[in-house]
Amino acid sequence: MEHVAGTDAANPTDGGDRPDPGGRPGKSEQTRSLILETALRLFRERGYDKTTMRAIAQESGVSVGNAYYYFGSKEHLIHGFYDRLTHEHITRSRQELRGVRDFGDRLQVVLSVWLEVAEPYHAFAVQFFRNAADPESPLSPFSAESYPIREQVTELFADVLRGSSLRIDDELAELLPELLWLHLMGIVLFWVYDRSPERAKSRAFVARTTPMVERVITLSRYKVFRPLVRDAERLIRDYIVPEGTTPPEQRG
Amino acid sequence: MEHVAGTDAANPTDGGDRPDPGGRPGKSEQTRSLILETALRLFRERGYDKTTMRAIAQESGVSVGNAYYYFGSKEHLIHGFYDRLTHEHITRSRQELRGVRDFGDRLQVVLSVWLEVAEPYHAFAVQFFRNAADPESPLSPFSAESYPIREQVTELFADVLRGSSLRIDDELAELLPELLWLHLMGIVLFWVYDRSPERAKSRAFVARTTPMVERVITLSRYKVFRPLVRDAERLIRDYIVPEGTTPPEQRG
Repeated sequence: MEHVAGTDAANPTDGGDRPDPGGRPGKSEQTRSLILETALRLFRERGYDKTTMRAIAQESGVSVGNAYYYFGSKEHLIHGFYDRLTHEHITRSRQELRGVRDFGDRLQVVLSVWLEVAEPYHAFAVQFFRNAADPESPLSPFSAESYPIREQVTELFADVLRGSSLRIDDELAELLPELLWLHLMGIVLFWVYDRSPERAKSRAFVARTTPMVERVITLSRYKVFRPLVRDAERLIRDYIVPEGTTPPEQRG
Repeated sequence: MEHVAGTDAANPTDGGDRPDPGGRPGKSEQTRSLILETALRLFRERGYDKTTMRAIAQESGVSVGNAYYYFGSKEHLIHGFYDRLTHEHITRSRQELRGVRDFGDRLQVVLSVWLEVAEPYHAFAVQFFRNAADPESPLSPFSAESYPIREQVTELFADVLRGSSLRIDDELAELLPELLWLHLMGIVLFWVYDRSPERAKSRAFVARTTPMVERVITLSRYKVFRPLVRDAERLIRDYIVPEGTTPPEQRG
């Protein structure tokens, strides 16, 4: 689908994919948003596997070619959804982190904001999770295709650390943002299967685990802990989140 | 389906569900085994969701009523499969543990044996995993229905610890078997998605993580670690593997 998404000839020339000076989204951005909303609704209603690009275009009131211009495939739609969720997560987290210095409080902010921005999509996530659980699926948060999103969220966790009063040394500072991202993935898994009203259990789980994470980090400064930190780093690189995962070409 | 599995009238009276004195399985045990083998083959060929009890009975050459006598539902068949796998895992592990005293070596034995006994079912596991990933599914290893199996494997891990030269105190000795079982669940997840030939990557993963587990246990004896151990224990009880999960009624 690369040839469709990447065709310059199909690119609207009005620059409409950027917000206009008044801050309102341009027409192109509106169309893109409409297709994404429609797709998410159809995925919820019919299931991800059974929803075709043709149906998404039809329900959005655009041509199939136009839908493919914005999203090269259904997988691109999911990545469009991930992008939006990530953007909201990061923007809101950065706002709420202002003036917060305690590491535990900062971590709590970022994890709680994730639960809040993801909440409207819970029903979809449950239905969709089967497709994203396989680490080799492009839809998995561990895939090469998800690298840009993973990188942004990891950078947010680096900020959580840097802006805190917690003292950590260089070796740990490099590994920790990724470990915190893995911790978030654990919370996502817990949340996907959480049947409590408005995911109260997930929120309690975050509140319970955050001080534990802080404690582990504090303990990891002890010298006796160091060989374990190094082993963990190598293990993560070799098996879980390979370093230098080639980011896929930028998507339109 | 309880009324079917539990109906005494349907119980063969020849005591055929126990091995005869010569050590060969009785006729009833043979039928049970045949139904289970057939079901596993059909699950592999047609998928778990699309395979009916009727089809399993038909392919096994038994009546539908007879199939239901041995396995009250498809879920009971999966538990029959879990039982068999667990029995083989435990029996072979106990044989290979004889004379091994080093904790790391003992852990390595138990995890490696699991990979060996599970290997023939890898293709099925991949297909089936979607049904077992939900912790509230009776097919999940975390469910109340899986309690008897979880308990047996946890007991095996208690043996791994007791028979080793590793010194651990009482508080930790109570929590550790369950943590080791959770570690095995992590390896199962890794294994399900492992595409390497004959799951070479999973075996390497076990070899890499075993010394790390040993290191964590050694470190956890330090006093400074204790509050974390207690938090972890409470977290596991409250959210992951609740204590006093009521075991379901014994299955025929």
